[in-house]
Amino acid sequence: MISKNQQKQLRALGQKKYRKQHGLYLVQGEKNVIELVDAGLAIEQLFATSEFLTKYEAKLATTTCVEAEEEVLTKVSTLVSNNAAIAVVPMPSVQEINTDGLVLALDGVSDPGNLGTIIRLADWYGLTQLVVSENCADQFNPKVISATMGSFVRVNVVRTDLEAFLKHYQGECYGAFLGGESVHQCQFSPNAVLVMGSESHGISDPIAACINKKVTIPAFGGAESLNVAMATGIILDNIKRCHA
Amino acid sequence: MISKNQQKQLRALGQKKYRKQHGLYLVQGEKNVIELVDAGLAIEQLFATSEFLTKYEAKLATTTCVEAEEEVLTKVSTLVSNNAAIAVVPMPSVQEINTDGLVLALDGVSDPGNLGTIIRLADWYGLTQLVVSENCADQFNPKVISATMGSFVRVNVVRTDLEAFLKHYQGECYGAFLGGESVHQCQFSPNAVLVMGSESHGISDPIAACINKKVTIPAFGGAESLNVAMATGIILDNIKRCHA
Repeated sequence: MISKNQQKQLRALGQKKYRKQHGLYLVQGEKNVIELVDAGLAIEQLFATSEFLTKYEAKLATTTCVEAEEEVLTKVSTLVSNNAAIAVVPMPSVQEINTDGLVLALDGVSDPGNLGTIIRLADWYGLTQLVVSENCADQFNPKVISATMGSFVRVNVVRTDLEAFLKHYQGECYGAFLGGESVHQCQFSPNAVLVMGSESHGISDPIAACINKKVTIPAFGGAESLNVAMATGIILDNIKRCHA
Repeated sequence: MISKNQQKQLRALGQKKYRKQHGLYLVQGEKNVIELVDAGLAIEQLFATSEFLTKYEAKLATTTCVEAEEEVLTKVSTLVSNNAAIAVVPMPSVQEINTDGLVLALDGVSDPGNLGTIIRLADWYGLTQLVVSENCADQFNPKVISATMGSFVRVNVVRTDLEAFLKHYQGECYGAFLGGESVHQCQFSPNAVLVMGSESHGISDPIAACINKKVTIPAFGGAESLNVAMATGIILDNIKRCHA
């Protein structure tokens, strides 16, 4: 059973302020919680339905589990469905940026769904790191974790002063703009940064000043733009086919 | 001013049953309404704020407009923001499938956001038609229209018995599966159908039986899948680069 106090704590972790204060975040829903368990990451506490605990009994042998009614889990969850389990997880320690190979960097991507989708994409294309500027959405926001579909366990999100990082970066620096070189023609370097800009304003001026080459997804019709997560997926696919 | 009766009618058009009964659908928000006006499509009636009507006065000379308070528009709208205008629009007449060139077809894509995003993608890649199976989301659902970001005016959505269509189709029929030929290697025919399956079950068995070639986006990491709209974007990009 989840106590009233625990319910209050779980709800508080929906907010960035409390996550930061406690160094904890939430992982919700069957798929994401099982990815977490399979990855062997530390779990502070797991609240789950008896069905979930029975189904995954073998995997959960060393995890601190609290059985809970699905309706209580739903009440404290930020998800509308699939509230079989909620894990309270310690935030990983801050890591240095690894500049080997392709580095994907986001400048001001503020929508949690977009950030989560981009983490999932990074994982699909084999990137184990995502660099985000300080004004990007919080990577520990429950909506971000949810949208990653489990990929948050394999992609290390590094929040940094993006301008300072790019100023010292030695390789090629690609940026997604309208009106750059077509990604169908571009010969991508395997050691490079790809910067994707914010939903509403694209790449900001200080970051644009660090870009060596502007790249663009060729348009064949009337749509003015693509969503930033969609554009990230298409550009990553074009980069990866150069080096497959 | 919008009368109580008009408010009731607008709210009713949020439901498929009433849209079908009246042959009308809603287009909401500044971007989508202006795309509609610019495309010269018929508008039964336009409800908009005085700011909107003033800003676009020249474009709206021949449109039947009713001035409304933003708070009333928000009350009858299905959108959470940008309720500057709501247009009531007659559904277009049903069209035949045009089988020239690339035909994009959806099998059971049920999420309105995904359908709208795919309409926007189709428009980006120059497709003027999208074929959808009978169990796909309603293309006149306000969430679909909203997600198209104006592309609904340029893409004709044809709802059909997809199995019957594919059985008579003469060209190549590609389908997106896990474990097919890599889209990075595939030589795509310019005259072909590309079928994308549903969010939860992929391509259904009767449709799979009509596919000549299974294609796959190569994965380089640990993510198990990509969202169907994302996968559609990446595959369309791969097809288009073959024929650019």
